[in-house]
Amino acid sequence: MRARNLSIDVQPPRGTRDFFPRQFKQREWLFDHWREVARLHGFQQYDAPVVESEALYVRKAGEEIADQIYAFQDKGNRRLALRPEMTPSLARMLISRPALPLPLKWFSIPQCWRYERMTRGRRREHFQWNMDIFGVSGTTAEVELLAALVSFFERIGLSKHDVQIRVSNRKVLEEVLYAAGVPADLFLPVCMLIDKADKIDEAELLKGLHELAVTDADTIARILGMLDATGLEKIQQLLEGPAKRVKTPAMLQLEQLLEGAAAYGIGEWLSIDCSIVRGLSYYTGTVFEVRDSQGRFRAICGGGRYDSLLSLYGGKDVPAAGFGFGDAVIVELLRDKNLLPFDDDTEAAGSVDVVVFSQAPEFQPSALQISKTLRSAGISVDLVLEHRKTKWAFKHANRAGASAVVMLAEEEMSQGQVLLKLLQTGTQCSVSNKELLSHLKQAGIKPRL
Amino acid sequence: MRARNLSIDVQPPRGTRDFFPRQFKQREWLFDHWREVARLHGFQQYDAPVVESEALYVRKAGEEIADQIYAFQDKGNRRLALRPEMTPSLARMLISRPALPLPLKWFSIPQCWRYERMTRGRRREHFQWNMDIFGVSGTTAEVELLAALVSFFERIGLSKHDVQIRVSNRKVLEEVLYAAGVPADLFLPVCMLIDKADKIDEAELLKGLHELAVTDADTIARILGMLDATGLEKIQQLLEGPAKRVKTPAMLQLEQLLEGAAAYGIGEWLSIDCSIVRGLSYYTGTVFEVRDSQGRFRAICGGGRYDSLLSLYGGKDVPAAGFGFGDAVIVELLRDKNLLPFDDDTEAAGSVDVVVFSQAPEFQPSALQISKTLRSAGISVDLVLEHRKTKWAFKHANRAGASAVVMLAEEEMSQGQVLLKLLQTGTQCSVSNKELLSHLKQAGIKPRL
Repeated sequence: MRARNLSIDVQPPRGTRDFFPRQFKQREWLFDHWREVARLHGFQQYDAPVVESEALYVRKAGEEIADQIYAFQDKGNRRLALRPEMTPSLARMLISRPALPLPLKWFSIPQCWRYERMTRGRRREHFQWNMDIFGVSGTTAEVELLAALVSFFERIGLSKHDVQIRVSNRKVLEEVLYAAGVPADLFLPVCMLIDKADKIDEAELLKGLHELAVTDADTIARILGMLDATGLEKIQQLLEGPAKRVKTPAMLQLEQLLEGAAAYGIGEWLSIDCSIVRGLSYYTGTVFEVRDSQGRFRAICGGGRYDSLLSLYGGKDVPAAGFGFGDAVIVELLRDKNLLPFDDDTEAAGSVDVVVFSQAPEFQPSALQISKTLRSAGISVDLVLEHRKTKWAFKHANRAGASAVVMLAEEEMSQGQVLLKLLQTGTQCSVSNKELLSHLKQAGIKPRL
Repeated sequence: MRARNLSIDVQPPRGTRDFFPRQFKQREWLFDHWREVARLHGFQQYDAPVVESEALYVRKAGEEIADQIYAFQDKGNRRLALRPEMTPSLARMLISRPALPLPLKWFSIPQCWRYERMTRGRRREHFQWNMDIFGVSGTTAEVELLAALVSFFERIGLSKHDVQIRVSNRKVLEEVLYAAGVPADLFLPVCMLIDKADKIDEAELLKGLHELAVTDADTIARILGMLDATGLEKIQQLLEGPAKRVKTPAMLQLEQLLEGAAAYGIGEWLSIDCSIVRGLSYYTGTVFEVRDSQGRFRAICGGGRYDSLLSLYGGKDVPAAGFGFGDAVIVELLRDKNLLPFDDDTEAAGSVDVVVFSQAPEFQPSALQISKTLRSAGISVDLVLEHRKTKWAFKHANRAGASAVVMLAEEEMSQGQVLLKLLQTGTQCSVSNKELLSHLKQAGIKPRL
């Protein structure tokens, strides 16, 4: 009845991860914070298939992502793909339900796939916290998103000295480029260059501008000035003509965003950085990204406003803002700062309250009954299922991170009792089955639900 | 900066599902019960990539599953597949870590993919609760698994009258076939026929046996007798020779399983059914499946003992038992019995405690601060982000399932207060910012963490 036995590659496919219980705990620790922050901010969770039609991803021409898609053909000759990001699925879902009442505050924690070359720290899958608000045109939407981010950072022990939220506005960037004399047909390539500004030095930037025939000294000075600008006033100065005196709508947006953030009490986490471009489609206004203050890692999170998302997919536009926050860089940063729990093999990954152990096989039926009683009371019980030595049972209980061992031993059983040992204090006592639950509760071992 | 706009298919790929917030809530309701039952029984959660090497699935020759794999080739010419089930990944993980201390009690809730023909109620993906115990050879392992199943059914409102756990033992089946005179080389095809016994009538079964050249009247009588057997004694009678008087190890296993279940207090949920075969590889002893009592749906859950799993993948064998429990049939059954929550569009899918609403834009900074204070106290706040009418805010709060609305209105604000309306009782009062939190707590709106 058995097929051939062959040895297989026991590693997960290249660029992917197994989650053994300790790694799973670590992942859930992160996800729990994401979920709780989303809940506190009134966001509802959704999900979509990890496999989508490839067509959903091919429309954003000129982007890196199109080359990195895990695409394949199914047996019905449909072209499918493992989702590289969640936003297209979200757009598809919203277009399919035009009657959904707005605004929507939705979040998700999808696993996303990209076929990347395997460099240090890069993987081919990651989980990504997505938070999106649809139906709000004002910058209060962005402020809510940034408030959620700050709330998350504070919960996991990061301060404004550890991470920086850099904000900009796509339209402000365009206006400055226009004022600086960059021809409209060069906006895109100049933006692409600016997108790289933090990875290349000034000489390379200048070389890039020259190659694009941007050679005018004043134009270049303005572009460089913009990249250095950290305040609204400085940016205002770079705007030519009437815009220099009267605030443009884009400048007003940026100003309102900063004011809203200040009102929420998170102003000090933000700084202006006009080099933030965040990819090339999608965004129509605010853009932001979070980086570690020391600049050691890639961006932790990126987002902004994308009021034209739905029409990109054939739907009717709705004002929208959101962010994506991967599980890779934040974990690197937390590990670097010794803030990551469950990161050491000695940490018990267990979530067991009590180990129930019968010293002799004939007590196993009683052990079953005790386990059932405790579980019915909401207490997590790891019942030792085979005959083992007492020493093993206690070692096992420690490894599992249990708080107590309930042992069914000869002497106690003859008196209708069991032995209860509390592992943190080392105290032990004999108790009847009836008293067991109250003893456990006294010791702080309570139902979690 | 924008790519071409094309309308896309807004439906998810054939056979897959979107999870809008209400559907997501429903899914989480189910998963929460699975997770909580696993926790109560001392199981640790793990996960593996949804994409595995195709080689992991091709070894089980002769099974239906091999034809239903979503397989594809990546850009590095690797043959990959969307996992059709979790067990091969689990086997791979355990073989990769031979030093893991046994026993292991692990669970997972993976999404699994099969390319099935689209018949009613069938999908191409489902989530599957997997519970596995490795390192325990005794039937206490199976009893723990069945105990977890019963605990789950009780939690979601199903009784032993709604579902039946049918148990059998592969080796008992083989022994009966041997005793009945079925030649060893016909065990496999006869088992395959028996596997279908509940879908075909007796005439078809007899025809099938005849086609296999099983024509002896006594042999056929014994096979039919076995399929009708509901007690250990009846099965014992079907065993020929010494086995008729002395219990075989397989019969002892089945007996111990029933005794253990009785000791745990779940004996009445179980019945013997020798037609349970559960696929053709894997299982080496106990097999069980759960069906709705009326026989209206496919199997709800299936499992058993598979002591030779790891060697099937080139590893060293470890005794093991487990089950897989899909999210499809149980949801159909619960819906049929009106036991499924969040199944109606009128049910608020929200998890929001309080809606904060400023009647005039100038109060929005105060609204931001109030929201921050409440969130810091663990209360979920949906802040109204744009200028809206009061009527809209209350309608929105009801739709979101909120318990209270905090309104920043002209009159109250002029006195340094806000209006608090409790939606369940309809009571409202003016309170200062300082008093707000204690008022909410009095009304039962408390931090959830």
